[in-house]
Amino acid sequence: MKIALAQMRVIAGQPWKNFEKIKQFTDEARQKGCQIIAFPEMCVGGYLLADRWTEDAWCNHLVSFNDRIRELSEDIIIIYGNLLVDRSRKNKDGRMRKYNAGFAFYNRKPLPRAGALPEGVTIKSLLPSYRIFDDERYFYSLTEYACDTNTQVEDLLQPFQTTIGNEVIRFGVEICEDLWFNDYRYRGEPLNISKRLIENGAQFIFNISSSPWTHGKDRARNNRIQESFRDTGRFVPFYYVNCTGVQNNGKNIVVFDGDSTIYNEKAQVVRTCNKLFTEELLIHDTDAALNPIKKEPLDAIKAKYLAVIEGIRGMDEIMGNDRFPYIVGVSGGIDSALTACLLYQAVGNKRIVACNLPAKYNSQITREIAANLTGKLGLNMHCIPIEEMVNVNNRLLESFNPGELNRENIQAKIRGTSILSNIAGILNGVMTCNGNKVEIALGYTTLYGDVNGAIAPLGDLLKTEVFEMASFLNREIFSEEVIPWALIPDESFQFKVAPSAELRENQVDPMKWGYHDALIRMFTDYQKTGAETIIRWYMDGELCKRLSIPETLLKRYGLDDPRVFIDDLEWVTGSIQRAVYKRIQSPPIIILSKSSYGYDIRESQLPVYYTDSYNELKKQLLERS
Amino acid sequence: MKIALAQMRVIAGQPWKNFEKIKQFTDEARQKGCQIIAFPEMCVGGYLLADRWTEDAWCNHLVSFNDRIRELSEDIIIIYGNLLVDRSRKNKDGRMRKYNAGFAFYNRKPLPRAGALPEGVTIKSLLPSYRIFDDERYFYSLTEYACDTNTQVEDLLQPFQTTIGNEVIRFGVEICEDLWFNDYRYRGEPLNISKRLIENGAQFIFNISSSPWTHGKDRARNNRIQESFRDTGRFVPFYYVNCTGVQNNGKNIVVFDGDSTIYNEKAQVVRTCNKLFTEELLIHDTDAALNPIKKEPLDAIKAKYLAVIEGIRGMDEIMGNDRFPYIVGVSGGIDSALTACLLYQAVGNKRIVACNLPAKYNSQITREIAANLTGKLGLNMHCIPIEEMVNVNNRLLESFNPGELNRENIQAKIRGTSILSNIAGILNGVMTCNGNKVEIALGYTTLYGDVNGAIAPLGDLLKTEVFEMASFLNREIFSEEVIPWALIPDESFQFKVAPSAELRENQVDPMKWGYHDALIRMFTDYQKTGAETIIRWYMDGELCKRLSIPETLLKRYGLDDPRVFIDDLEWVTGSIQRAVYKRIQSPPIIILSKSSYGYDIRESQLPVYYTDSYNELKKQLLERS
Repeated sequence: MKIALAQMRVIAGQPWKNFEKIKQFTDEARQKGCQIIAFPEMCVGGYLLADRWTEDAWCNHLVSFNDRIRELSEDIIIIYGNLLVDRSRKNKDGRMRKYNAGFAFYNRKPLPRAGALPEGVTIKSLLPSYRIFDDERYFYSLTEYACDTNTQVEDLLQPFQTTIGNEVIRFGVEICEDLWFNDYRYRGEPLNISKRLIENGAQFIFNISSSPWTHGKDRARNNRIQESFRDTGRFVPFYYVNCTGVQNNGKNIVVFDGDSTIYNEKAQVVRTCNKLFTEELLIHDTDAALNPIKKEPLDAIKAKYLAVIEGIRGMDEIMGNDRFPYIVGVSGGIDSALTACLLYQAVGNKRIVACNLPAKYNSQITREIAANLTGKLGLNMHCIPIEEMVNVNNRLLESFNPGELNRENIQAKIRGTSILSNIAGILNGVMTCNGNKVEIALGYTTLYGDVNGAIAPLGDLLKTEVFEMASFLNREIFSEEVIPWALIPDESFQFKVAPSAELRENQVDPMKWGYHDALIRMFTDYQKTGAETIIRWYMDGELCKRLSIPETLLKRYGLDDPRVFIDDLEWVTGSIQRAVYKRIQSPPIIILSKSSYGYDIRESQLPVYYTDSYNELKKQLLERS
Repeated sequence: MKIALAQMRVIAGQPWKNFEKIKQFTDEARQKGCQIIAFPEMCVGGYLLADRWTEDAWCNHLVSFNDRIRELSEDIIIIYGNLLVDRSRKNKDGRMRKYNAGFAFYNRKPLPRAGALPEGVTIKSLLPSYRIFDDERYFYSLTEYACDTNTQVEDLLQPFQTTIGNEVIRFGVEICEDLWFNDYRYRGEPLNISKRLIENGAQFIFNISSSPWTHGKDRARNNRIQESFRDTGRFVPFYYVNCTGVQNNGKNIVVFDGDSTIYNEKAQVVRTCNKLFTEELLIHDTDAALNPIKKEPLDAIKAKYLAVIEGIRGMDEIMGNDRFPYIVGVSGGIDSALTACLLYQAVGNKRIVACNLPAKYNSQITREIAANLTGKLGLNMHCIPIEEMVNVNNRLLESFNPGELNRENIQAKIRGTSILSNIAGILNGVMTCNGNKVEIALGYTTLYGDVNGAIAPLGDLLKTEVFEMASFLNREIFSEEVIPWALIPDESFQFKVAPSAELRENQVDPMKWGYHDALIRMFTDYQKTGAETIIRWYMDGELCKRLSIPETLLKRYGLDDPRVFIDDLEWVTGSIQRAVYKRIQSPPIIILSKSSYGYDIRESQLPVYYTDSYNELKKQLLERS
């Protein structure tokens, strides 16, 4: 038997385009002698549609494609994900009942199976409601269906059954999160969907996914499937098919890597797609030997580089064309240099409008860096001095008596709003926000200034990752110094040209690079580490080890003095909280970590607050010293 | 027996402050001879904390207050809502297991009760995951607990039992959404929590809530309790206690009205708090007769006025002081006039810095309106002409050849960013965004211009509601013409001074006032009406009736021509979709409807798309005419 996994580029909000692709892949698979083709979860309308899911007309439209896809199933079994509605019942939100469902058609008929569910469909059992996922907001799960209909989940998780030639086949279909079962419980046990499908007779299983890329997810997935194998005691060939493409949820841009993978009966990887982030029809002959293969894990920075390029390219779908220009302010600092290089790699130099916007505090050296960089990349470069406009702005506000910080913001706002955002408007282009995750976390940014943009390519990269990615580009992509090495510090974070906003005389960024990056990684990680734990590590002398930073760094920043350490810690935690109001008005960030600002980390405006346990530890530390 | 309902102003993120209030109210209730005091849901840390709920240190800190509150329960039963954690189990998100819980202590001990749950606690059964609510993201429900522990929900929903004097009392505690049971299912039936508590012996029930205000929710709640009464067959005295105060979820500001209410055994309202939006200790003697009272429903605009004032005042908690100024641009149009009046009512004229920022297109009439208005309110007024800065900005961009729309945006951005946002920065103040819901929906706004601000008081009011609220203020609050009647249209939406952005010669807003408001109400309503339905109503001749607009309006706007009607409809639907990118970067909106932009309506950037059924109806309509 030949099975096709359609690693399809799903376009959110474009069911007709997706349907045409489904048709095309199905025809191709049939021609190539496949008996089964499997498509990803929610491949008709896309997955990250936010409250579009609450619009009945849209939902009914999506459902209408189920008939159309059924009609394509002559001589080939089609498995795919789409919406299932039950108009006779209500969702918990009082709207029409909706399921994130899997469908299986063959010869224009739904595939039969045992159990209480209608023929030809299955329902997603485990609904992720963390990070960017809101499945519980929109869909009703199989477990809730079981509870509502007084049935047992075990009886509902039945394989589809049919005959191909003379052979009876029984296969299970599960949907994305259904394989990430370990934290879900049913009668005190992990709710292992694969196990139940196997126990109910599945000879093989399809997992159809819309699973966003994160670095290392392939290994995590392999582990889950191994756990499932061990939990089940035996296993069956397992076909994981995931989409590619870029979807968004307003505040984040989310890339899908595909990475469709075939596992054997020992839950070992035996085959994967040819290329990540790339549409592909993977055809597998089940008579072929299922020998395990070993995949070299991608280096984190290389993986993030591939993802950010993909995320930038995703703007073409959002904008509805692939001709608009990117407007990028190039200051001579590393963030804007890296952004320009990434744009160059993603869309080429013809679509980039680089602007250097000097005022009196911009040094000769950064201006030269900007000129050299744009020269090397062959970018369209505009130099627009803003001094006159800054002076007029200052004069208009003179009676309010602006302080130094206000005068800095005035410059940043003229750059971001008066110049760059207007150029983007004139050219119908996209302005980039060049901020990194450390600046965004600490609010070391000017709202309506450098916060501006329609996309933040570096918004989920720590500054240390910005340095790493810049080195990676010089070394492995350009094979020459495009981003000046002078902008990249040595291992102890000493700079030739230190990061600066250049908004006043001799300004350098107040961040303790390396250390603050590590703190922010801890504070924003999926499993968050609190300031309490940071003090405890400090007191136990294991902070550097825990943060993976050189021991010398603490001393260099004076943090070996507990008073300095505490003041700095409270500056960081306080700044993070105070910057929420800026993030509320920030542009979409491409997700590159397991926890990005935007719609991934959701934030209320709350007071800066320290727990009793924090205050107690702080007291102990300061008294002891 | 005397029962105290503590309609407490809960401060999000401030457990110690809330605990002090709990202590104070408990002492007062004890002194006044109460045997029971009930506090709202999540009254220790607040409810709308977004991903603060994913921080273990914070959660552990909240839990530590349970011991402290238990210690307050000498001679008085304390019922309240807070977090319950189970460190031995995992949530579905892989983090620590968390419950939105109710607690009951008496004489420093947890109250006993039957069933499998620990003494002294109950768990929220129904977890809202719609609108701004994300309970499923953070908490594990009682139904999930039942599924996990292989118990039955009926057996878990047991009343607490104790003896006061010689009297045995048994009362149930339910949490907020638990009374909104009709859309939740368990074995095919609505999951009526009150019914199960009553069947298990509850003589009375407390519902402890953190239930945001929406207009008409009191009637909706009364209806639900009536339904519960009918479904149960009998009922018991029912004590609803809700918090006051203002909380936020980043993109929205949410007001809580309290409205604590006592219902009798026939589910009739017998007593309510004295004042909405106001902290109060409501003491009720159970020996008193429980005769139904009739409450006059509040007029919608008056209710929204009270709510918006409360929302503005809530900024004091966000800012951490009550002295900062509000910076408001006063253009002479109705939106900024209304905003200024609302600020005046909320915080008084001393805290308002009004700015009129004329350029060459601002008419004498609007400049006079602005001057008169600020004069009448006694506001600190600055007139800052922006023409020079506009000229410099235009000159800097001349080589890019800006078009008319770009030149309009340049002016708006200088106002919003270069002047107003800088003044706010200098004065450590809060700039208001004066946009209304129609502008925000259609994106008839300039990003980094009039979109700017830290709060959007009118952001959830249609323009028609802006007119109504302006009239209401003139008539009932000021008892004189503060907002010029000339800015308010007659019933057929004819203006003396028509709404205009005044960014070019003779500009008037392109909106079809009255009609577009009604469309946007339909498109954004909780139960959304699609463009398909609008065409159907139009074809059936019932559009005006359905939209509650005068029949004459369609003709006046030329919409009786189907071609004009369709073009306009697609302009509206297309504009709403294209404006998502602006809303991503918009400031927090005070929620005043059942469906506000922000975190209530969540949006992806998606292409403008029409369903097949829309296209079919459009074809029919255009062919027929």
